[in-house]
Amino acid sequence: MNRMDVTEKIVSAKVAKGIRWEDVAGRVGQSKEWTTALCLGQMTASAEQATILGDIFGLTDEECKWLQVVPYKGSLPTAVPTDPLIYRWYEIVNVYGTTVKELIHEEFGDGIMSAIDFHMDIVRAPDPKGDRVNVILSGKFLPYKQY
Amino acid sequence: MNRMDVTEKIVSAKVAKGIRWEDVAGRVGQSKEWTTALCLGQMTASAEQATILGDIFGLTDEECKWLQVVPYKGSLPTAVPTDPLIYRWYEIVNVYGTTVKELIHEEFGDGIMSAIDFHMDIVRAPDPKGDRVNVILSGKFLPYKQY
Amino acid sequence: MNRMDVTEKIVSAKVAKGIRWEDVAGRVGQSKEWTTALCLGQMTASAEQATILGDIFGLTDEECKWLQVVPYKGSLPTAVPTDPLIYRWYEIVNVYGTTVKELIHEEFGDGIMSAIDFHMDIVRAPDPKGDRVNVILSGKFLPYKQY
Amino acid sequence: MNRMDVTEKIVSAKVAKGIRWEDVAGRVGQSKEWTTALCLGQMTASAEQATILGDIFGLTDEECKWLQVVPYKGSLPTAVPTDPLIYRWYEIVNVYGTTVKELIHEEFGDGIMSAIDFHMDIVRAPDPKGDRVNVILSGKFLPYKQY
Amino acid sequence: MNRMDVTEKIVSAKVAKGIRWEDVAGRVGQSKEWTTALCLGQMTASAEQATILGDIFGLTDEECKWLQVVPYKGSLPTAVPTDPLIYRWYEIVNVYGTTVKELIHEEFGDGIMSAIDFHMDIVRAPDPKGDRVNVILSGKFLPYKQY
Amino acid sequence: MNRMDVTEKIVSAKVAKGIRWEDVAGRVGQSKEWTTALCLGQMTASAEQATILGDIFGLTDEECKWLQVVPYKGSLPTAVPTDPLIYRWYEIVNVYGTTVKELIHEEFGDGIMSAIDFHMDIVRAPDPKGDRVNVILSGKFLPYKQY
Amino acid sequence: MNRMDVTEKIVSAKVAKGIRWEDVAGRVGQSKEWTTALCLGQMTASAEQATILGDIFGLTDEECKWLQVVPYKGSLPTAVPTDPLIYRWYEIVNVYGTTVKELIHEEFGDGIMSAIDFHMDIVRAPDPKGDRVNVILSGKFLPYKQY
Amino acid sequence: MNRMDVTEKIVSAKVAKGIRWEDVAGRVGQSKEWTTALCLGQMTASAEQATILGDIFGLTDEECKWLQVVPYKGSLPTAVPTDPLIYRWYEIVNVYGTTVKELIHEEFGDGIMSAIDFHMDIVRAPDPKGDRVNVILSGKFLPYKQY
Amino acid sequence: MNRMDVTEKIVSAKVAKGIRWEDVAGRVGQSKEWTTALCLGQMTASAEQATILGDIFGLTDEECKWLQVVPYKGSLPTAVPTDPLIYRWYEIVNVYGTTVKELIHEEFGDGIMSAIDFHMDIVRAPDPKGDRVNVILSGKFLPYKQY
Amino acid sequence: MNRMDVTEKIVSAKVAKGIRWEDVAGRVGQSKEWTTALCLGQMTASAEQATILGDIFGLTDEECKWLQVVPYKGSLPTAVPTDPLIYRWYEIVNVYGTTVKELIHEEFGDGIMSAIDFHMDIVRAPDPKGDRVNVILSGKFLPYKQY
Repeated sequence: MNRMDVTEKIVSAKVAKGIRWEDVAGRVGQSKEWTTALCLGQMTASAEQATILGDIFGLTDEECKWLQVVPYKGSLPTAVPTDPLIYRWYEIVNVYGTTVKELIHEEFGDGIMSAIDFHMDIVRAPDPKGDRVNVILSGKFLPYKQY
Repeated sequence: MNRMDVTEKIVSAKVAKGIRWEDVAGRVGQSKEWTTALCLGQMTASAEQATILGDIFGLTDEECKWLQVVPYKGSLPTAVPTDPLIYRWYEIVNVYGTTVKELIHEEFGDGIMSAIDFHMDIVRAPDPKGDRVNVILSGKFLPYKQY
Repeated sequence: MNRMDVTEKIVSAKVAKGIRWEDVAGRVGQSKEWTTALCLGQMTASAEQATILGDIFGLTDEECKWLQVVPYKGSLPTAVPTDPLIYRWYEIVNVYGTTVKELIHEEFGDGIMSAIDFHMDIVRAPDPKGDRVNVILSGKFLPYKQY
Repeated sequence: MNRMDVTEKIVSAKVAKGIRWEDVAGRVGQSKEWTTALCLGQMTASAEQATILGDIFGLTDEECKWLQVVPYKGSLPTAVPTDPLIYRWYEIVNVYGTTVKELIHEEFGDGIMSAIDFHMDIVRAPDPKGDRVNVILSGKFLPYKQY
Repeated sequence: MNRMDVTEKIVSAKVAKGIRWEDVAGRVGQSKEWTTALCLGQMTASAEQATILGDIFGLTDEECKWLQVVPYKGSLPTAVPTDPLIYRWYEIVNVYGTTVKELIHEEFGDGIMSAIDFHMDIVRAPDPKGDRVNVILSGKFLPYKQY
Repeated sequence: MNRMDVTEKIVSAKVAKGIRWEDVAGRVGQSKEWTTALCLGQMTASAEQATILGDIFGLTDEECKWLQVVPYKGSLPTAVPTDPLIYRWYEIVNVYGTTVKELIHEEFGDGIMSAIDFHMDIVRAPDPKGDRVNVILSGKFLPYKQY
Repeated sequence: MNRMDVTEKIVSAKVAKGIRWEDVAGRVGQSKEWTTALCLGQMTASAEQATILGDIFGLTDEECKWLQVVPYKGSLPTAVPTDPLIYRWYEIVNVYGTTVKELIHEEFGDGIMSAIDFHMDIVRAPDPKGDRVNVILSGKFLPYKQY
Repeated sequence: MNRMDVTEKIVSAKVAKGIRWEDVAGRVGQSKEWTTALCLGQMTASAEQATILGDIFGLTDEECKWLQVVPYKGSLPTAVPTDPLIYRWYEIVNVYGTTVKELIHEEFGDGIMSAIDFHMDIVRAPDPKGDRVNVILSGKFLPYKQY
Repeated sequence: MNRMDVTEKIVSAKVAKGIRWEDVAGRVGQSKEWTTALCLGQMTASAEQATILGDIFGLTDEECKWLQVVPYKGSLPTAVPTDPLIYRWYEIVNVYGTTVKELIHEEFGDGIMSAIDFHMDIVRAPDPKGDRVNVILSGKFLPYKQY
Repeated sequence: MNRMDVTEKIVSAKVAKGIRWEDVAGRVGQSKEWTTALCLGQMTASAEQATILGDIFGLTDEECKWLQVVPYKGSLPTAVPTDPLIYRWYEIVNVYGTTVKELIHEEFGDGIMSAIDFHMDIVRAPDPKGDRVNVILSGKFLPYKQY
């Protein structure tokens, strides 16, 4: 058994039972973004969270233990994603990558925006011309230092 | 001559003269995100904007014309970026890609978040534990339709 | 279980029972292009459509539920397709890619032809020198905007 | 000197002089699709066409001769295109590739849609919800034969 | 079930029963080249041919139906083949590719040698210095046309 | 200076002077296939041949010396060729690769068809349904031996 | 069943029974290099050799038949091997590749060192500073010829 | 200036002056294998050796200094070499890679054959059936140790 | 059965029983770094160590034998790792790679730092600004020699 | 002009003048590791440091300004490095990658070792059996948090 087996079982149960990620997040007591990433095999659960997920998705004890093991992260099957929704994000990185780099360096100097001390919030923004997906990414700035 | 020559000249002039992207944006009258992407060869200028940029960076008439030609977009030299700042964004897409997909579909149904009817805002969020880079991405939701 | 299992079962049943895509489309009440893409795991069915497909291909309730889940899209096993029929389309993109780009920009300005607000129609055009495959692609033009 | 030098000179002259592809096609006496592909280094000119293009873009005799040499075709710098407009076409091939294959085989049997005995027509389709790019692809069906 | 399962069963039966491709071709009534390609999952059988093959290799009715479905073609596991015999052919394409292109264009003008309206004949040519493999490739010339 | 410079100069002179490969081959006294491969940087000339080529293409003494140096072979810019004419040959290797392997082994046993002790002949075969490109490949069979 | 299944069974039996390749070679009556390559799925056995191997590793009749079928060669899972021992050989090819080419051409002219009419011998060379692995590679020189 | 410029100058001078690697090695006082690798930019010269090479190939003082700088090694333009002579070596690694690994481990245990404490000797072995290229590779065995 | 099966069983047992690598190392009597690499399929056990591991993880005799076979090394599923923790190490190699090369050569001359005669120690360094991961890598310097 | 031009000029001057990185670091007042990375185009200089480097390497004012611009990082020409010294580090990541991941997670929980809040120290460790390269890597542990 490995973590991918557990992920596949969770996703299968979700489809079979018609569960919503938002409701899972409510029961876990964390954001829908982090909770979904956890269920999709990218984050690590506490023992309590694992028990709650085991209850929701009908997992065995051993499967619940796997949720508490730090997973090998990376959720995409190819380096350039083929799925159109995910590709648009890759395209943003590709088209705006150097722009993002220039502007963060102009404001903060040499360093990076952390993808670890990081959170994300995805919200619907109603708009008469068509609703929008608004996403807030927040990452701590980590400066390169001299030594 | 091609657009990359113009981009390289702009970046060279920026370093030599110590120009800030934010000031360029102010003179162009658009956001710093769009303006920087324009200067880095990813967007298309109007005739007036091209003249302003020509003035700022010392471009010839022919170079100004190139700014008004739609460029071949894509700003990264490799499919997986090696630069740590840009890589963190790629990592976010890789680790959270399936999460983003699940949550947008749960809220909106099948479709994508547009990378064309799209804007981005990068801001500094002061924080006593270390300032954060906050980014707002906003893309129109475009539904897949049956036909 | 995942969507690929359902796709494989549909294709297997189609071969075993000698079903035609055009007939499936007739029963689903949509075009043959969209319906085939749905059956091949690229589109999302409504509950009614899933029931009809379940009836045609002998699917279980759980399999019908999977048809209503937005799939991870992308139908090709390699970035450059090896199948000669599909490769010819890739070749058209490769040989004519910059031409298409130039002409759409000349007519519409900077932007893209949507692959989401999109439909396709494949028809036989009788021709004494050999019948032709005619394809109509129709995608909404989405302009890049300044911000 | 090689064909790419000639292509680059043509594109440079086009930008400097503000020439439209459609007008070039009018003078060459062929469709805008074929003529643009010719100018972008993908097709082969006759002597008369080369002279006309030489006149329009200010080419030397030797450059005109290169237009009459069959070029090494392929207009994209990477196997998966990074430019969003061209990528959307790649995405159509990727998402709909197996659908196209199924439907052409269902109608015609085993074989391909030619990319050589082929033409393409790109037109604007006015639409109150936003104009559309309509493209007609027409390729002769070539059957695989037994031997 | 899919075509690859049928191919694997055919190859397995061939080894177990010690069948020769040439004899299979004799019973099918086509060339050994086309028949072998059919058995290896690259071509499409008629109903009669499928019945003959089913008889030779002990296939079920459903497996025979799969032989009549147009397969997803491409017989190699990697883009550059590792098998020395097949690699030599790849090497010929790599070393002589531009030569072949020049000579066909010199004789025929712009166009291609078809890989669809195509046949191949592999024969032993006795030679005192060591027998030779002689291969005749024959493909219809398809000219690019202007439009 | 390197061999590619010499190749580029030869091809440039060929276009400027309107020379045919077949005529070059006639003066060199070898087949058009080998001679073209030599001119395209894949084969090695004798001193006499180099002198003849120098005369035809206007090469310097040093350039003639480079023709006598064994080149780094491989004439294609990408592992999978983008040019349609050359791709068709790659496609033949991909679709028929395992067939070729099976039939040569059935006839000769384990070994390869040499790409070194090899020659190729490209001829036009008139045909009322459209002329054909016929190619004869001839390579010595080299058996694997036990030791 | 395929050859890889047989290879995996042989390797499994070797580990379970503690068999040495050298002893297998002794019973087969060939070198340890060729015999090991045979057992690892790269070479083709005679009927007698297959029987001996079947006896040593406990193979069925059908598995023994597979040993007599010419395999699809290539023993590495990636183009650049990750295993340190095998990588060192790849590194030698990468670092010394052009050197080997220059020296063989200087001695023999244009041609190759055969990898088919080839044998290899791996021996321990005792050395007070640490024993050495000495390898003798021997391949027939095959000259390119003009035609 | 960089090492590749020096390599290109050395190779150019070698062709122009008709120098043999073996003679260069004789003057340098090392083996032809090491000396050629040095001239091709893979090894590092002492000051004396650099002076000798400078004399042979007409190098400037600065170019001689570059010969004494440790180069970025790797002599091949692609991960899988396209040149037939070098490819055969890659093929040997690919086909025999696991065999070499098994036999060295059987004799020496876990570890590698060094590619650094390594030397190579390429010799002609006269043979009535065609002369052979014999190569002796010698690398120190370096054991993995526990810690 | 193969080594990967054993690795997967060990990791599964570790999760199910809540075993720590450090405790495994204590029982094996080696460092936690080497022992973990052994359990993850990268190193080779002695008979005694295999027995201890078999006892800890509940392995069969045959599985214990596999631990004593030199494995095919390489622990990552892609050439560029997607997991953020492992990627950071790849990033260090990418960003600092040429720096490491320059400084080792400046101190030691031409050669490498061995990855075989090598050990690694990972320790926690308490720090009021956030604890640090300190890693000591130690590899024997192996000089390139002339021959 | 761009940063790579400056890097190339620095390296060229270093070779021509025989400068040592350690001495450069002494004058800059930082570690040899950081200073070398700066000179090789991976780090960002302060104005004072740029002036010192300009003095050492004979840089113009504009070149000194480039040293103060945050560079596009990544120092290797290929994803898998070909240079043996750098490859050994890649190999360590490949072989020990999962080990490093397991042990850091066992000690610290889910998170990463920073490559930004990071320093490195390369030292010679005298050893009678051959001196060793000892490297200390120190990166702050950054925990993934729930949100």
